[in-house]
Amino acid sequence: MLTNTRQVRIEWGDCDPAGIIFYPRYFEIFDASTNALFERALGLTKFEMLKALPFAGFPLVGTRAQFLKPTRFGDDVVVDTTIKFGRASFEVEHRLRLNGEICAECVETRVWVVRDADGGFKSQAMPEDVRAKFRV
Amino acid sequence: MLTNTRQVRIEWGDCDPAGIIFYPRYFEIFDASTNALFERALGLTKFEMLKALPFAGFPLVGTRAQFLKPTRFGDDVVVDTTIKFGRASFEVEHRLRLNGEICAECVETRVWVVRDADGGFKSQAMPEDVRAKFRV
Amino acid sequence: MLTNTRQVRIEWGDCDPAGIIFYPRYFEIFDASTNALFERALGLTKFEMLKALPFAGFPLVGTRAQFLKPTRFGDDVVVDTTIKFGRASFEVEHRLRLNGEICAECVETRVWVVRDADGGFKSQAMPEDVRAKFRV
Amino acid sequence: MLTNTRQVRIEWGDCDPAGIIFYPRYFEIFDASTNALFERALGLTKFEMLKALPFAGFPLVGTRAQFLKPTRFGDDVVVDTTIKFGRASFEVEHRLRLNGEICAECVETRVWVVRDADGGFKSQAMPEDVRAKFRV
Repeated sequence: MLTNTRQVRIEWGDCDPAGIIFYPRYFEIFDASTNALFERALGLTKFEMLKALPFAGFPLVGTRAQFLKPTRFGDDVVVDTTIKFGRASFEVEHRLRLNGEICAECVETRVWVVRDADGGFKSQAMPEDVRAKFRV
Repeated sequence: MLTNTRQVRIEWGDCDPAGIIFYPRYFEIFDASTNALFERALGLTKFEMLKALPFAGFPLVGTRAQFLKPTRFGDDVVVDTTIKFGRASFEVEHRLRLNGEICAECVETRVWVVRDADGGFKSQAMPEDVRAKFRV
Repeated sequence: MLTNTRQVRIEWGDCDPAGIIFYPRYFEIFDASTNALFERALGLTKFEMLKALPFAGFPLVGTRAQFLKPTRFGDDVVVDTTIKFGRASFEVEHRLRLNGEICAECVETRVWVVRDADGGFKSQAMPEDVRAKFRV
Repeated sequence: MLTNTRQVRIEWGDCDPAGIIFYPRYFEIFDASTNALFERALGLTKFEMLKALPFAGFPLVGTRAQFLKPTRFGDDVVVDTTIKFGRASFEVEHRLRLNGEICAECVETRVWVVRDADGGFKSQAMPEDVRAKFRV
């Protein structure tokens, strides 16, 4: 499966009074990394996906994460992101490293949703032509 | 004019490695305080306003703020919010106090917008019946 | 074990272009709910804990969460938070409800840390007199 | 004076239900841009500055901003940041552009602070050798 790698600077404003990253900021990084993986695979930003595809988002149904070593402002971390397809959902896996050492790992379980007739969301299998773009 | 007062706890996650509030968090507090003022005046949450009124938001065109004394996690601050109407825009004024002392002041200049035919936004005078609700 | 319950307003700024909560904001709510549970048990804010106790924080070592129903701006949700003690770590459990329905559940695994001689952090068992305060 | 230019991706999670950037996120971008300017001038991250210099931060005393055109997720904006020195404070100026058009401008008024004997902060003139690094 395709893996996307991006570098992220941990900012002063991401850190808490202990001087280390405030952990909800990791999930902001992971969410952006999921979008970056799709952009890499499809050649479309999420904004463009919403216009071009039968697609209204890929909300989380669950997540699990481990925080192995803290990071702090000024750290340039590297995030590797890949994907696994299930029947009704898919998992996006993130591994965040600093100087080669894994600091945090996360698996996001997401569903592909479209708008239903009432303007709400309903989940649907990810289209096969979208999935195919991740197979490399 | 109507003034709305709300109490807000400054949280650990709002603070930076210096142990004091990271200033963009003040603007999150002020934005929520603007919404709370409208909810107090109209009896509608912003979600309900979007459904019930010719209204698509009140984006910022400018802001200015002074930060007089820092606040930190565990502080229960009080925010007083009021409004002034101009011809094409309106100003929302926020005063944030801790134990009676002013810590931060902000003026947000906002415009009332509606959706235009293309799905974009266009600014419009705030309806007179909305304005009237702030006069007390 | 002690359970703390707090009400939280989901704000406009917590929500994403799909109109529902951006999931990292749930973890900000859960982190604040953990602090609120300790404040309820000990009668100390986190700021006061850092001054009064052999304590430098309770960083996350892991978390897992399920998102069952989305919430959106204007929703007043209720978060119930409780705790379980393990040998080397402890789990804080959060259940977030809207109108009685569970929307999100999270288990945070945390460790109690103190400053070591170098100014870094080392984990330590939570003091027994602290634990005792949660037994009700 | 030295100007630093950086590119920033506006993320899905930076945007609100109107589909455009939630304005407090601009101040997160500006704060990071201030740090980037100092890093460019001094060759030190803020973390390194705190270790190497008589320095405990440069908190805001005020800010003013104009928001001229909204930006949205997927936009790659460019931020130009420069500095002006006053007697007791300094101003950091940010200009945020999309495709060459200015979308937002901000002036942050900041003071250079050091730790005082009680562990609090006191403002001090920025050291002359630090100022000199911005003159190009």
